[in-house]
Amino acid sequence: MVIDEIPGFWAVVPAGGAGTRLWPLSRSGSPKFLHDLTGAGQSLLEQTQRRLAPLVGDRLLVVTGEAHRAAVREQLTMLPPDGVIAEPSARDSMAAIGLAAALLERRGAEVMGSFAADHVIADPDGFAAAVTEAVAAARDGWLVTIGIQPTFASSAFGYIREGEPLPGHPSARMVAAFVEKPSVSVAEEYLATGEYRWNAGMFVVRPTVLLDLLAAQDPEFTATLRAIAAEPERLAELWERLPRIAIDHAVAEPAAAAGRVVTIPGGFRWDDIGDFDSLAGLLGDDDACSVLGDRALTQLIGASGIVVPGSGRTVAVVGLDDVVVVDTPDALLVTTRARAQEVKNVVAALKERGRTDLL
Amino acid sequence: MVIDEIPGFWAVVPAGGAGTRLWPLSRSGSPKFLHDLTGAGQSLLEQTQRRLAPLVGDRLLVVTGEAHRAAVREQLTMLPPDGVIAEPSARDSMAAIGLAAALLERRGAEVMGSFAADHVIADPDGFAAAVTEAVAAARDGWLVTIGIQPTFASSAFGYIREGEPLPGHPSARMVAAFVEKPSVSVAEEYLATGEYRWNAGMFVVRPTVLLDLLAAQDPEFTATLRAIAAEPERLAELWERLPRIAIDHAVAEPAAAAGRVVTIPGGFRWDDIGDFDSLAGLLGDDDACSVLGDRALTQLIGASGIVVPGSGRTVAVVGLDDVVVVDTPDALLVTTRARAQEVKNVVAALKERGRTDLL
Repeated sequence: MVIDEIPGFWAVVPAGGAGTRLWPLSRSGSPKFLHDLTGAGQSLLEQTQRRLAPLVGDRLLVVTGEAHRAAVREQLTMLPPDGVIAEPSARDSMAAIGLAAALLERRGAEVMGSFAADHVIADPDGFAAAVTEAVAAARDGWLVTIGIQPTFASSAFGYIREGEPLPGHPSARMVAAFVEKPSVSVAEEYLATGEYRWNAGMFVVRPTVLLDLLAAQDPEFTATLRAIAAEPERLAELWERLPRIAIDHAVAEPAAAAGRVVTIPGGFRWDDIGDFDSLAGLLGDDDACSVLGDRALTQLIGASGIVVPGSGRTVAVVGLDDVVVVDTPDALLVTTRARAQEVKNVVAALKERGRTDLL
Repeated sequence: MVIDEIPGFWAVVPAGGAGTRLWPLSRSGSPKFLHDLTGAGQSLLEQTQRRLAPLVGDRLLVVTGEAHRAAVREQLTMLPPDGVIAEPSARDSMAAIGLAAALLERRGAEVMGSFAADHVIADPDGFAAAVTEAVAAARDGWLVTIGIQPTFASSAFGYIREGEPLPGHPSARMVAAFVEKPSVSVAEEYLATGEYRWNAGMFVVRPTVLLDLLAAQDPEFTATLRAIAAEPERLAELWERLPRIAIDHAVAEPAAAAGRVVTIPGGFRWDDIGDFDSLAGLLGDDDACSVLGDRALTQLIGASGIVVPGSGRTVAVVGLDDVVVVDTPDALLVTTRARAQEVKNVVAALKERGRTDLL
């Protein structure tokens, strides 16, 4: 398949999120998007940029925290000077993506697409094909989301319920509703209907359409975003006025209810690597033990799961199934794939003890 | 209870054994007897010396490998210059204890007792009482062993089957037989009879009696030991002629068959810390997670078993029961109490890979 650059299309990459369930790999000073979590030789951020480059060239805008601006520039040396927006503070995804939209509106971007910096996609061509279709629909004024074909009944993702087909765009369908993360049994019912897809948080839309959809809910929010774009020197002052809200609640859900959202199917393998269970599933098959790092640093006897030998020390594991062992220079984590969600409780406990040096 | 020093009684402490099932705590360069495995603030060797001091004063002879001579002296500063015998090579327990016997025979010791450097005894007074009784029986010419009252059907220890009472020594009984480590089900049968005790390898005997019992099986062995004692400068030359055999097979079993061995009951809690399962059992109750080291270096959520934070790093464990996590500066072990015996396979595998730096 030949992938063509899409004229007038810009990519926005929100690079935030602490990734506390991936502690001690992911730290507040070095969140997961800066790490090579797949053994690909590139960080998740670098992989995201390389996946988007064939579609957008250097029309890429990374929105990240002030603390990570330097690290982002170090990894993405191709970014132009105005390619990074540093948020003065974390104010959730609507502020981050909305500011990018306001800036791109002024720069004359026709369509923008928002793609998180810490997702993993196995099939870049399939991704490019879906994005190309999404841009075509977005040009017609729709808010377009890419709906991932589910491969199992996950309780870790939100879902998109598909509605009627969209005339003029062969694979597009209306979005009947966005639904929150379900229980596994509810997710199984979703899959049985064939009407549900995973919500990967990928939105493709004209910047003005996005800002106007937001204005329909919160005119002040859109006005402030446009004010910042008009006078960037007022960023620090105006930023703190923006509500903390996710783009899903601020725009996507109300717009779906108003019949303004469509979805394009994504058949590529996708994961957001929410925790070590997800990472283990991504890296290996169920029987063997995945090693993220130098396998010569491990000695595994009757072990399955995932081992990260990240300190140069030898890691020996004997007789444990579905185990998670993450070794870093100053902290070690031992848990199981089934309990991987609880790693965030370790981070919370360490924070309470004042061990911010480890967070 | 008042413990009296026992005139003419010497303690022999064989300090050997690699302790590979306690890797990575125990290393060939730093075997388990040199470590504080119980959190007592003293190594097992130091604890052994302090347990014996009330009975023998400084009449203590440590038999260890040439490589560990300096470390032994560093820990036991009270030892007189001739208090350490350095074996030119490891030749099993008969050579080690037999050489001590030959040296003590020349020094005029009346009775000697052999007590391993790496055992743990919870009740020093109970131990002293049993040893005092054992010495009294040894003065009458018996080979005396202290038989530990079993607390469960262990398959990790050899057993002593008791015979008839010994007249003149209230709690002493003849040893009908020594039996090898049984299966758990056989051990359960042993316990049901009430006739079996654990063999802790503690032998109390007149040096000359021990050497003569050995001579009855292997006159050359005894002659060589006495030759070394007579001319210590010939140690390196003569040592290599000694057979590699355990004292149990060389002397204790044939002497028991000949009706020359008696046993004194030991009601004190005893363990040889064979592996991390045994260490976990020794340190804690079944529900909680034992920590050998600084508990402030751990963050435990739904964890039981044993954690050894031995590198200064923080160790977090989430949702694992009966786990074993041993953190050292250059190697990390993660296993379960049930699989703790297999840790020796890690050592074997690392040896095969040429990683002697870790052994």
